[in-house]
Amino acid sequence: MTEALVHTRHGGMRDVGERLASSVVTGGGLVSPREFDGWWDERRDAVRFRTRRVALEEMAGWRIEPESGSLVHESGRFFRVEGVLVEGPAGWTRPIINQPEIGVLGILMKEFGGVLHCLMQAKVEPGNLNGLQLSPTVQATRSNFTRVHQGSGTRYLEYFRGPTRGRVLVDVLQSEQGGWFWRKQNRNMVVLAEDDVPAHEDFRWLTLGQVLGLLRRDDFVNMDARSVLACLPLAAPVGLPDAAFTRALMRSYEPGQEGLWSLDEVLSWLTEAKTRCEWTVRLVGLNQVSGWARSDMEIADAEGRDFRVIGVDVDVTHREVSRWCQPLLAPRGEGLAVFFTRTVDGVLHVLVQARQEPGLRDLVEVAPTVQIEPRVDGIADRAREPFVTHALAADPARVRFDSTMSEEGGRFHHARTRYQIIETGADFPVTVPPNYCWVTVRQLVELVRHGHYLNVEARSLLACVHSLW
Amino acid sequence: MTEALVHTRHGGMRDVGERLASSVVTGGGLVSPREFDGWWDERRDAVRFRTRRVALEEMAGWRIEPESGSLVHESGRFFRVEGVLVEGPAGWTRPIINQPEIGVLGILMKEFGGVLHCLMQAKVEPGNLNGLQLSPTVQATRSNFTRVHQGSGTRYLEYFRGPTRGRVLVDVLQSEQGGWFWRKQNRNMVVLAEDDVPAHEDFRWLTLGQVLGLLRRDDFVNMDARSVLACLPLAAPVGLPDAAFTRALMRSYEPGQEGLWSLDEVLSWLTEAKTRCEWTVRLVGLNQVSGWARSDMEIADAEGRDFRVIGVDVDVTHREVSRWCQPLLAPRGEGLAVFFTRTVDGVLHVLVQARQEPGLRDLVEVAPTVQIEPRVDGIADRAREPFVTHALAADPARVRFDSTMSEEGGRFHHARTRYQIIETGADFPVTVPPNYCWVTVRQLVELVRHGHYLNVEARSLLACVHSLW
Repeated sequence: MTEALVHTRHGGMRDVGERLASSVVTGGGLVSPREFDGWWDERRDAVRFRTRRVALEEMAGWRIEPESGSLVHESGRFFRVEGVLVEGPAGWTRPIINQPEIGVLGILMKEFGGVLHCLMQAKVEPGNLNGLQLSPTVQATRSNFTRVHQGSGTRYLEYFRGPTRGRVLVDVLQSEQGGWFWRKQNRNMVVLAEDDVPAHEDFRWLTLGQVLGLLRRDDFVNMDARSVLACLPLAAPVGLPDAAFTRALMRSYEPGQEGLWSLDEVLSWLTEAKTRCEWTVRLVGLNQVSGWARSDMEIADAEGRDFRVIGVDVDVTHREVSRWCQPLLAPRGEGLAVFFTRTVDGVLHVLVQARQEPGLRDLVEVAPTVQIEPRVDGIADRAREPFVTHALAADPARVRFDSTMSEEGGRFHHARTRYQIIETGADFPVTVPPNYCWVTVRQLVELVRHGHYLNVEARSLLACVHSLW
Repeated sequence: MTEALVHTRHGGMRDVGERLASSVVTGGGLVSPREFDGWWDERRDAVRFRTRRVALEEMAGWRIEPESGSLVHESGRFFRVEGVLVEGPAGWTRPIINQPEIGVLGILMKEFGGVLHCLMQAKVEPGNLNGLQLSPTVQATRSNFTRVHQGSGTRYLEYFRGPTRGRVLVDVLQSEQGGWFWRKQNRNMVVLAEDDVPAHEDFRWLTLGQVLGLLRRDDFVNMDARSVLACLPLAAPVGLPDAAFTRALMRSYEPGQEGLWSLDEVLSWLTEAKTRCEWTVRLVGLNQVSGWARSDMEIADAEGRDFRVIGVDVDVTHREVSRWCQPLLAPRGEGLAVFFTRTVDGVLHVLVQARQEPGLRDLVEVAPTVQIEPRVDGIADRAREPFVTHALAADPARVRFDSTMSEEGGRFHHARTRYQIIETGADFPVTVPPNYCWVTVRQLVELVRHGHYLNVEARSLLACVHSLW
């Protein structure tokens, strides 16, 4: 947009929603399922990957800052493990990852045979349970692409920076885990390439239908990919299906379909929730976090129920740098994130929550109906919160989506969340507590055009909603 | 929205834009211009108001915090005068007001004779040049309405809180001066009352056309009122006028009229600007601000060019509390805020800037084409910045709006900004530097539905654009 004004540039943007929808429902694609699986197996065999636990003080390049007790990199870059102090009616402290730089999470798209395809990457991360996961085209911190760690350049980054990139479909700053990150935000981008793009051996062109279908495989599509997919301005395909659930789902994408509440009312509900939040939060040194202690091998809470911060020595071929040390946040147990749906007047509604998390920029964002961080006995401890027992007791026939997926393997060690979409019926309460609201899918798609409305768990689930077509 | 779901509740929301437009263009109203002026004079005579400069240490209820040197209230509430540290390519420090609570700025509207009216208040603030200014129905900090200073209740507040309030037309958290406030945000609200509302003697019902017309009077419509007016989802009235400028202006409000850039491209432009920002900012104690010193009577920069922090003892009848002391930020000189407009393909475009300010939550928001803080020789010092000389040399015939208005008199002492809207012609560059973008009025109206897109100066100017009809 720094070039001379070109009036026709966005002429074709209006049909983007339909073209994306077509890429969800059209069968086929450049790569058949069998070819995809073959490529994946081959990539997994090709990658040499090893992580080894090391003592915190033995991580090369990292040190404990004497005055604050925080865990920092010698360059002053990357990220720091510090503390967050929450003041309010019930105050507390906890370790938190502070990574102020804005990275790029980008999916490059291109049309083949009239169908949009996503250039997806087989990428390994040190914290991944299973090494390789399906990742966006580009996943780069600012340190990556400004070469702080002296690695090779990030492939395809040129499409996401500068005026020569293709047509930008999505470009929005979104938050990540508000319990574990201090105000982290990444630039979620989707760019439509108009020239030839050679696919490197770590990359394959997949239709949206293929990528969304892979969400059903456990620990397969990584968090960054889910986050970007959720930001797509997807419209419903033309024509309504016969099945009641899918029909209500499709109608929930329609622009004219306002739902129980107008978008302005939903925005007002969220503003009200933000105003009600009585927390004041700030960063403190790690040595000001009470109830947590550092041993040689980890930083952990005294009760041994919350996450630990561990150190790893990583050795891998398919990364910008082949060997490095870093801390990882290692949760205990599994998290849970659930969207409840209900059809009202033939339109599917999703029940969302305005949820406080100390690391979110506004403290409050739109979250799943049920969201429970991984923690020993985490779910049992929170059984009295709204809708948790409903989720646990759900009729399996009404569970429309159920997959356990990994959170960011570049910062978290084996962090897994069970994502579910549960259909509710006439027995489910329509009157909900003040922190909850029924919204249409279209309203979620509208909100996610803007940053910091949907938290990362809600975005993962929105991608899962798109997979239900 | 905590009550049972009412499907028809937002049924009438779609026509709100047109009803607001009608209140701009319809003549008449409950109060004639003569009656309004009579009421205003009477109010001005009725108010007893006196402020007296006092030494900083003599302000009752305020103290210098020994460890930080910051100026704080003994209750720990209200606000604090602290410092902001900006780290980046060129770092600096400066005093800043930290007021973490979210207040309410609310305008109550109601239909009389088929025309929407705003309940506007004649309100005095200690920093106002002229005492009384036209203010929103409600202008209350949280400390106000939770009674920290033991005053009487805030009139009409009940319409802006709780489930019994009327229909919410606007409800959004917006920033204030990013150079002077640390991440301050207020809840900008417009509520449509459906029952009878008695107007207290400090209040009058005015049409939108009347209120917007008063923007042309210097120091008359206060900053909070301008900010709320800017958030109205105004549509263009039906039918296009003959005059070329007004015709292009009206077309700029049309939803179908995308302008030079689509809204998604404008959002991407802003995301890019945020990503480019290399500042890291944090609060520090006032004693860590270098180049500034505290004397008995003020805190000021050594060169005597920037603002001062002074103390005042206030005595007034028309306030919740009749007497109190407080600090005020007193700028030297006048500020300047200018929107440049240009008609392209028959549609008026406004040139906006993505501007960095240390106190903004995202550091970057959409700002006027030219925005210069008040400061001794402020304008001369910045003559080389883009478009400043264009503004200073503008042909008076092309200046569509020109009024000097006051900034928040509750925190600032005689802070004035000259607001101008300048029409440019074919000689004006269409190719603009990367931090600038041409947008339609409709796009500004869309952006301002969400918080933290338009800074407070841009919002003031957007209200002025609405006054050009």
